[in-house]
Amino acid sequence: MMDIKFIENGSVTSPAGFKAGGVCASIKPSNTTKRDVALIYCEKQCNAAAVFTKNLVKTDAITVTQRNLENGTARAVIVNSGNANCCNADGLEKAERMCRLAAEALDIDESDVIVASTGVIGQPLPIECIENNIKALANSLSEDGGTDAAEAIMTTDTVKKEAAITFELDGKKVTVGAIAKGSGMIHINMGTMLSFVTTDAAISSEMLKSALLEAVDVSYNMVTVDGDTSTNDTLAIMANGLAGNDEITEKNEAYKIFVDALTVLCKSIAKRLAADGEGAGKFLICSVKGAKTERDAKGIAKCVIGSSLVKAAMFGADANCGRILCAIGYSGMDVDVKKANVYYKSLSGTILVCENGLGIRFSEELAKEILSENEIEIIIELNDGEACAEAYGCDLTYEYVRINGDYRT
Amino acid sequence: MMDIKFIENGSVTSPAGFKAGGVCASIKPSNTTKRDVALIYCEKQCNAAAVFTKNLVKTDAITVTQRNLENGTARAVIVNSGNANCCNADGLEKAERMCRLAAEALDIDESDVIVASTGVIGQPLPIECIENNIKALANSLSEDGGTDAAEAIMTTDTVKKEAAITFELDGKKVTVGAIAKGSGMIHINMGTMLSFVTTDAAISSEMLKSALLEAVDVSYNMVTVDGDTSTNDTLAIMANGLAGNDEITEKNEAYKIFVDALTVLCKSIAKRLAADGEGAGKFLICSVKGAKTERDAKGIAKCVIGSSLVKAAMFGADANCGRILCAIGYSGMDVDVKKANVYYKSLSGTILVCENGLGIRFSEELAKEILSENEIEIIIELNDGEACAEAYGCDLTYEYVRINGDYRT
Repeated sequence: MMDIKFIENGSVTSPAGFKAGGVCASIKPSNTTKRDVALIYCEKQCNAAAVFTKNLVKTDAITVTQRNLENGTARAVIVNSGNANCCNADGLEKAERMCRLAAEALDIDESDVIVASTGVIGQPLPIECIENNIKALANSLSEDGGTDAAEAIMTTDTVKKEAAITFELDGKKVTVGAIAKGSGMIHINMGTMLSFVTTDAAISSEMLKSALLEAVDVSYNMVTVDGDTSTNDTLAIMANGLAGNDEITEKNEAYKIFVDALTVLCKSIAKRLAADGEGAGKFLICSVKGAKTERDAKGIAKCVIGSSLVKAAMFGADANCGRILCAIGYSGMDVDVKKANVYYKSLSGTILVCENGLGIRFSEELAKEILSENEIEIIIELNDGEACAEAYGCDLTYEYVRINGDYRT
Repeated sequence: MMDIKFIENGSVTSPAGFKAGGVCASIKPSNTTKRDVALIYCEKQCNAAAVFTKNLVKTDAITVTQRNLENGTARAVIVNSGNANCCNADGLEKAERMCRLAAEALDIDESDVIVASTGVIGQPLPIECIENNIKALANSLSEDGGTDAAEAIMTTDTVKKEAAITFELDGKKVTVGAIAKGSGMIHINMGTMLSFVTTDAAISSEMLKSALLEAVDVSYNMVTVDGDTSTNDTLAIMANGLAGNDEITEKNEAYKIFVDALTVLCKSIAKRLAADGEGAGKFLICSVKGAKTERDAKGIAKCVIGSSLVKAAMFGADANCGRILCAIGYSGMDVDVKKANVYYKSLSGTILVCENGLGIRFSEELAKEILSENEIEIIIELNDGEACAEAYGCDLTYEYVRINGDYRT
């Protein structure tokens, strides 16, 4: 494994050549202070790629972004929170208008703008809020503005998600940075809530897309909060080549290093998304080991971490191994439950609660102690092969119900 | 449609020839009053059939029942609540022991006993509780004991589920009765939680199985509470022929009438299961109309009714049509969302909230009023074909989280 370092307070503005910013445009009339429009800008043209939700119902922002990325290049991202611009008659027109507003303010081509929206579905986007604030937004761009952009894309998120890493390619220092939002309606299926990644690596748009797919598959695609795949999932990456490495144009050693680094970054963000799932009190990891195939390992990990009963049991620190075994059983994966062992693990220790598919006696006191921590790993040993997978999620809490009982107000 | 009548206070003991009963055996040490073992008995041999969970992880009671039903006949059902007898090393032995205890007490063959269990998974079943109470259980059998049996199989259920209907076959009065339990871990996939159906119709075990599959497909299999398919789902039916109709041995007119009647009964019970879902405050129906195929209609109805976000929005009486459209979009079914209309309907009225796949303006006041009722129908018109389906569910509440945060105690 090569040397990958996380940068303190890293963000999308950590890689060379990128600026970002965010302002409050009051897209929700009740919001008069929180930033809700973000802009990311690169001083030079970038190779770019993106992946999107597989939901049939999609924001028009995705249609426009897909069209703008057809040539594999981009130079800016404009994003709003507070309204998903989805299932609206004028959605396409407004998504295009957002690109045009950004392009005019930045003096770039509107086809070089990536656009995204997040928030309430089915209510018209008040585009005038963005029009009125586009100059302020452009003026807010700065080399340490990634954190403002991260704030501007938040909806029910309670913490900003941003990170950056550095590593070496061809003896050159390369940096990759990211911001993300996502808290509810999260059951990621290629792409995610919203996440924007920047890098100064030199890499072709084709290789960028391929690297993104590889990294997403074991990071964002392994997160579930509530089993609902969003209509607006967008994960976009821009690479400006300023690091000066030899441009990656094939799946060589440098490509592999880039994928590994991107995966580390995406996993780090994916875990934070899960930990900040709507109403979450606890961050959960389900680690499946010894599965027959990677597909089986992933399927089981996602099924267990997505079970409402497992999530509620973790909320209550109830070491109910039946919930885990039940979810393994209905996962639809190829598994011999009679070989399965289940452990709970946290800072307080590790406890075996199921052996060879059977419930066993264990110390309820220790189990309670382990499950009372706020980061819990459910380890499933299948003893049936070599494949492994990790999925990320959170507990099901009163707060999730409260938030989603009254989401629109 | 033939004339089907519900019998007041109907139960499994409504058809001729059946007795039932239930006693408290304190299977959970903390339970000293609630009935937790049930027995159903028929004075003569019955044709019988059953369907079971598709979960790979299964109670051994299912293994034993499957074996005992190989010859298509049965004469009694023994069931306990408080312990699922699942994922235990001695599960098979104890399921067999339950059959033997019932057979000895009733002086019948142990291979004529259907056995089922429900409750905590992975903890040894205290069989001695059943041994100590088997005589009292046999003594409790009576012609109006169906209601005690219905109580004895309850776990987190808040109300007993029992019903019976009558109709005519060949000029003879035929009766079908049922009891059921089921509240959490409900995402039915052939069979259901626990349900036992009795009838005095004359029908071969082969036709009985076929009728059961047809009825289940549009009733129990259309219920979801939390997306978790149980390990113990069992739905069994016994027919003793005492009604005196010509025995149904092929798919003739009488068979069709029997299936229609059984479907009416199963739907009635299925709706009650959904309405009494764990923590449920509101009963939800999702009616999909105008789908391309029945598979599409069913898939969409189940996906919408199972969405955590839809369920939480219904809890909060939030007319968020985005939640519905989003769930339609990720259902994986063949659908053109741009043709879809969505309505909310209840005793307080009907309101259109989405037209041609787009959010529209509507009276928030009226919507709130409609969604504040405790029985709500979500109507989805797809305008894309003739197929229809209904799925049943409930809202997601604080109470669901509370119950499942601490299920085992």
